[in-house]
Amino acid sequence: MRRELSIEATGEWDEIAGQKPAPSADESASIVDGMTWRITETSALNQDVMDRLGSSFLVGNGYLGYRGTLEEYTHEQKVALIVSGLYDKVGDSWREPVNIPNPGYLRLEYQSQPLHALSSDVASHEQTLDLRQAVHERRTTFMTGDGCTIAVSARRFASLVEPHLICFEYTVEASQPCTLRVVTGIDGEVWDLNGPHLEQFESSFDEGALALTACTHERLVPIAVVERLTGDDGLAGWGREEKRIWHDTQLSLAPGEPHTLTKIVAVYTALESADPLAEAQRTCRDAAEQGFDVLLAAHVASWDERWRDCGIEIDGDDDAQLALRFSMYHLLSVAPTHAQSVSIPARGLSGQVYKGAVFWDTEIFMLPFFTHTFPEIARNLLLYRYHTLDGARRKAREYGFRGAFYAWESQDTGDDACTLFNVTDVFTDRPMRTYFRDKQYHISADVAYAIWDYYAVTGDDSVLLDGGAEIIYECARFYLTCSYYNHNKGRYEILDVTGPDEYHERVNNNAYTNWMAAHCFDVCLQVDEHLQQQHPVLARALLSRLDFQSDLETIRQIAPRLYRPEPDPQTSLVPQFDGYMALEDVSLPELLGRKLHPHEYLGGGNGLATTTQIVKQADVVLGLYLFRGAYSRDIKAANWEFYEPRTEHGSSLSSCAYSLVASEIGRIDSAYDYFMKTASIDLDGNGKQYVGTLYIAGTHPAANGGAWMSAVLGLCGIRCSADSITVAPSLPRHWSRVRLPLTYRGQKLVLTIGHDEMTVEAVEPLAKSRIVVHDGEQSYTLPETGPLTISLPETAALS
Amino acid sequence: MRRELSIEATGEWDEIAGQKPAPSADESASIVDGMTWRITETSALNQDVMDRLGSSFLVGNGYLGYRGTLEEYTHEQKVALIVSGLYDKVGDSWREPVNIPNPGYLRLEYQSQPLHALSSDVASHEQTLDLRQAVHERRTTFMTGDGCTIAVSARRFASLVEPHLICFEYTVEASQPCTLRVVTGIDGEVWDLNGPHLEQFESSFDEGALALTACTHERLVPIAVVERLTGDDGLAGWGREEKRIWHDTQLSLAPGEPHTLTKIVAVYTALESADPLAEAQRTCRDAAEQGFDVLLAAHVASWDERWRDCGIEIDGDDDAQLALRFSMYHLLSVAPTHAQSVSIPARGLSGQVYKGAVFWDTEIFMLPFFTHTFPEIARNLLLYRYHTLDGARRKAREYGFRGAFYAWESQDTGDDACTLFNVTDVFTDRPMRTYFRDKQYHISADVAYAIWDYYAVTGDDSVLLDGGAEIIYECARFYLTCSYYNHNKGRYEILDVTGPDEYHERVNNNAYTNWMAAHCFDVCLQVDEHLQQQHPVLARALLSRLDFQSDLETIRQIAPRLYRPEPDPQTSLVPQFDGYMALEDVSLPELLGRKLHPHEYLGGGNGLATTTQIVKQADVVLGLYLFRGAYSRDIKAANWEFYEPRTEHGSSLSSCAYSLVASEIGRIDSAYDYFMKTASIDLDGNGKQYVGTLYIAGTHPAANGGAWMSAVLGLCGIRCSADSITVAPSLPRHWSRVRLPLTYRGQKLVLTIGHDEMTVEAVEPLAKSRIVVHDGEQSYTLPETGPLTISLPETAALS
Repeated sequence: MRRELSIEATGEWDEIAGQKPAPSADESASIVDGMTWRITETSALNQDVMDRLGSSFLVGNGYLGYRGTLEEYTHEQKVALIVSGLYDKVGDSWREPVNIPNPGYLRLEYQSQPLHALSSDVASHEQTLDLRQAVHERRTTFMTGDGCTIAVSARRFASLVEPHLICFEYTVEASQPCTLRVVTGIDGEVWDLNGPHLEQFESSFDEGALALTACTHERLVPIAVVERLTGDDGLAGWGREEKRIWHDTQLSLAPGEPHTLTKIVAVYTALESADPLAEAQRTCRDAAEQGFDVLLAAHVASWDERWRDCGIEIDGDDDAQLALRFSMYHLLSVAPTHAQSVSIPARGLSGQVYKGAVFWDTEIFMLPFFTHTFPEIARNLLLYRYHTLDGARRKAREYGFRGAFYAWESQDTGDDACTLFNVTDVFTDRPMRTYFRDKQYHISADVAYAIWDYYAVTGDDSVLLDGGAEIIYECARFYLTCSYYNHNKGRYEILDVTGPDEYHERVNNNAYTNWMAAHCFDVCLQVDEHLQQQHPVLARALLSRLDFQSDLETIRQIAPRLYRPEPDPQTSLVPQFDGYMALEDVSLPELLGRKLHPHEYLGGGNGLATTTQIVKQADVVLGLYLFRGAYSRDIKAANWEFYEPRTEHGSSLSSCAYSLVASEIGRIDSAYDYFMKTASIDLDGNGKQYVGTLYIAGTHPAANGGAWMSAVLGLCGIRCSADSITVAPSLPRHWSRVRLPLTYRGQKLVLTIGHDEMTVEAVEPLAKSRIVVHDGEQSYTLPETGPLTISLPETAALS
Repeated sequence: MRRELSIEATGEWDEIAGQKPAPSADESASIVDGMTWRITETSALNQDVMDRLGSSFLVGNGYLGYRGTLEEYTHEQKVALIVSGLYDKVGDSWREPVNIPNPGYLRLEYQSQPLHALSSDVASHEQTLDLRQAVHERRTTFMTGDGCTIAVSARRFASLVEPHLICFEYTVEASQPCTLRVVTGIDGEVWDLNGPHLEQFESSFDEGALALTACTHERLVPIAVVERLTGDDGLAGWGREEKRIWHDTQLSLAPGEPHTLTKIVAVYTALESADPLAEAQRTCRDAAEQGFDVLLAAHVASWDERWRDCGIEIDGDDDAQLALRFSMYHLLSVAPTHAQSVSIPARGLSGQVYKGAVFWDTEIFMLPFFTHTFPEIARNLLLYRYHTLDGARRKAREYGFRGAFYAWESQDTGDDACTLFNVTDVFTDRPMRTYFRDKQYHISADVAYAIWDYYAVTGDDSVLLDGGAEIIYECARFYLTCSYYNHNKGRYEILDVTGPDEYHERVNNNAYTNWMAAHCFDVCLQVDEHLQQQHPVLARALLSRLDFQSDLETIRQIAPRLYRPEPDPQTSLVPQFDGYMALEDVSLPELLGRKLHPHEYLGGGNGLATTTQIVKQADVVLGLYLFRGAYSRDIKAANWEFYEPRTEHGSSLSSCAYSLVASEIGRIDSAYDYFMKTASIDLDGNGKQYVGTLYIAGTHPAANGGAWMSAVLGLCGIRCSADSITVAPSLPRHWSRVRLPLTYRGQKLVLTIGHDEMTVEAVEPLAKSRIVVHDGEQSYTLPETGPLTISLPETAALS
């Protein structure tokens, strides 16, 4: 997509956010010009392009996501409307998100022939995603056989103000007088991987509103889609089939006089309302009374607020600017603001792939963005883990442990949606036993890590009181019960696990896992200390309710004896797991050259990588980032240089970790390259499409989060801890300046970082507490108002 | 082979052993008629038949084995002469036994045309193995183009008196006067899997002896083969090439007047002599002076002694009689009497397959036969493990443990010959990572079990003093260091192992492994107690030399806390390992129906069996046999019935265990069927020929040992413990009587077991100690002389 990209400078910061840019020491470096807010695709449409845009041009608001498909598309072109938190299972197939009947369907006919972007004579076509406004647009010019030119343009948005609302606008203009037939309505013939998930369809046309209701197959959850059409001049008839209902109208067009239709749609399920149909009817009617333009304005204003609190300006690099905005757009589009019972699935709301499941991706790669910008969303995401804690308890019991062993693939209940056979062997077409579900013990510690990090950055201990402490205790209890004492070595070990590098399953003492588990113990003890001091009554009640006192004492005893793999004193290298260094040291190209099938899985029982040092993704290197305070720059550098050529980056999570550590060790070029890789994954459409024979495409919110992390926490060198913000930037040379907002301990700040100096300024006068800024060498106290300006030392880049 | 089998009653017990049969209560049941001592093969020769006979018609004497091939065969027909304990490695291939130059080669020419069983016009052909005398015979009648009939017969034996000696006799007779050319000598162009292993060939013809010497490739071990020909009337010339030397003679035959040549051959390597050539020359000359007939008579007398001390008569079942004799013949043929530095490889001395490696097969499946009949051979076999103890120590260290972790595939040094990639994936033709080497922890406990069992049966504690105690201590130390404490369950566990069922690799708490390890701890403590009481000085010295006192105390503490999987109280079933019962419960036929390739491996990373309850071989059931005193008949029955249909018997070790436990639970028909299966494996030639694409054929001494166990310890119900012999027979109905000799605590006994009564009698007056015989209900003391006769209760057979 990059090649066809037309970058349009459609606005500037001030217009959007209503704020002045923070004062800059170098006024000559304008931050106005490079702004890039729109991506436009003009490629000829084919299956690949359609699939890609379906994901990357998605509009969403955290409750629902609507794929970037065209109005005339049906299930065959993978139209999808996914609502957060609704899953269904049919037969023996896996449980997956439910695809809601499509309210965006519109068929245009000229002389009884459909005008369709795929089959008609198309003079021009483009699709645009406006990142600032979160609006999808399409523009197509059809040529008819009799010489008439018919221009179609459409816009849609998923309201950020009213999450149950999605609005469509459709404009046609003809070069000759003509009558066009428009059939538009709700299409219940949806694209499904393992469907059909909907049954008991009912439809109605009542007081101008079309309604389609159905129930999910497994749990009989009612859903309702209601839509109102305007611009049909009240002339439309309607029709229906079992799974469809539609308006049917004739538009008489005069040359050069465009005609516009709008559709206001409300979607509800019984998960949010006892009477989803009535709720949808009411929401739709209320919204329709406001009209498309008013709804759009409110939507845009809401997005403006979002961008104000998180939007980053990179001066000097339009590519990076666009890619980062695109990444943040996707994070914001799927961020749940409406509930604490849902989180962000690994493929966002872009379809049914990956079972709509929530992975560790959310805690490790998405949460930092929210924690540092929209802590209230981060809090929702964390409390989803409390909502699903009982599922994690059940999983721990299932495997003979106590405490909470979080699902590797978590859906609504927290029970693990991950199967034991996750990959199909391309050589035998048989399901392959994998150990994602059983052995990725680190997931529980990842959750605990994120909760503790949230508390450190925000200072908000309510997340501990509202479930976070209970989660952390139960996670620590899990590690207590899955650690084994090695009599020979006088230490506790964690055996038979799979770390982030899933190509090496069932290994002992995976450094990442052991570090995380040890951190979980540490956090558990710190949470107890905090609660004992600040909330003694609650502390006692919680220990009693969880019957945790005795386990806590045991954790206190064994925590120092849990084996935490250390760098080798000679080489500074941390072996990824016991015996890793003895594996075959083959180069990545040589390993890939051994493949007999392009889609063969490198891990699993007989995978090519399993017996070698080739790893799927950052594992030790990720751990070195997460515990960046505990390891020297030399150790980070040695491990980065060792593992980097051995990493296949078979996961979209990998580049981000390599970028982050590259920034810390002064490998700025590498840090930038890996940042761009993670920021561009859905722009370039280079993400992995297959594992074995399983199609896994969709958006990559973890990579999107990783892009923000790489830019802000990596290149800009920001590290928020409980007592200070450290800013030790490693800006690429061509980034003349970066301006970024942060929310730290309840206070909105704006940082402006250049090569020579940086400023930090509170958006509103500092209220609660002193904020300390550290530049890596020295501490400064942020003034109550006005900027703190710090001169930066010369950067000594390695690269 | 069974179908073409001609059973010849060639002798009776009295003739052979010079003993009277023990008195029988039922004199009408003759034990004379059914004796079966010869197997004859008359099948048309093809590759399959040649390969099969090469193994099953082997002659050997523990030092050397000579395959059952014909005299005119060369390396192409897999001629092999293997000497025990000599290994070599070429390049990157695995180390394997060395195939010694073939001294049996003989080419017969009639009018310049070779007479060859494969290419000439053959009127009749048969090969016979005489089990009693341990002599291989062949008889072939060739028809020449001009109407002459030439009959060839040949005999050979590997002397049981002088293990370096192998003797050949070759007789020709023609129907018409003619002259035959005979070329016979030593052929150094040998069959190799991973050769060539021999180099620096030198040959000589000196004082009537041909000599060929060479060195092994890797360690430059000199070997020498010397042979003397008689019957050539001194007319032979000789010739040689680089790797061959031969006599060349013309025989003038008169019709009906057979002519006989003999060859006396001596084989030495530098492992047994500082000057193998001189030693072979001397041995060959001395032997040749005695001549073939004298050497044969001494050989036969020696075998007669063997059969006297172990030969079993089964009255009423010629098939079983022959199969059991055949099994015992093969055990005796490969039993090392000459050294304590070698043991019996898994494929005996039948070739280079299985690397000539010694497995747990020896201790668990072969040793009982020797322990109960030839304890001096059992002692040699056990002390081989002392000879290789340092290798086991190295392996333990390699894996981060202490003590002795015996090689899964042991050769001369005890270092593990097992590779990490033991099977080739038939779908990708790639080596498959298997965990035989790393994870079959039970091997060390198997060794300790066998030592302790030897001591219990023989009462000979010298095996403990001469290395056995040290082995047991080091094995216990190994389990000490590989056991992990499970804090959650308050017990020590053994994790990440592979049990006998190799289709399920890397499992936790494999019942067999845990039981064996726990037994090893128990034995370790008992050995210490015995030594402290009987040999206190040695006890102290050993503990001190091994620095074992502290580990011994730890073992004393943790032994009771090592998890010993127990039968489920409801079902009586012992899960084979943690989580076994949750695996897919598929029938064996259905599983096999899923195969896509006839040779695909069912285990390994992606094997069909790994995710199911289908097991390769007896695992829990074997454990229930080895610890038969600890479990009730009901528990054995429940587990037998559960696991039996789930067992693929992909190992020749499996049937024996099923037979043994079937006898204990009264399933006599099953016990008999499994006995016949294990006893007939090399008779039928139904053994597994491939694992993946790896050819693994050869003899099966463990199955041979299993046949003896199934018959004696199973169907005859004999159990020798330190304080008594229990005899609780479950004879098949058609076995009217079984007569068997045993050596128990230094005393040779003969047992005669019928359906109504049994007798036990000491061959010589009881000397040392009281012997108690138990019939399962009651104890009797064996009289000093004369038989003890016990009436047997009615058998209540389940089947």
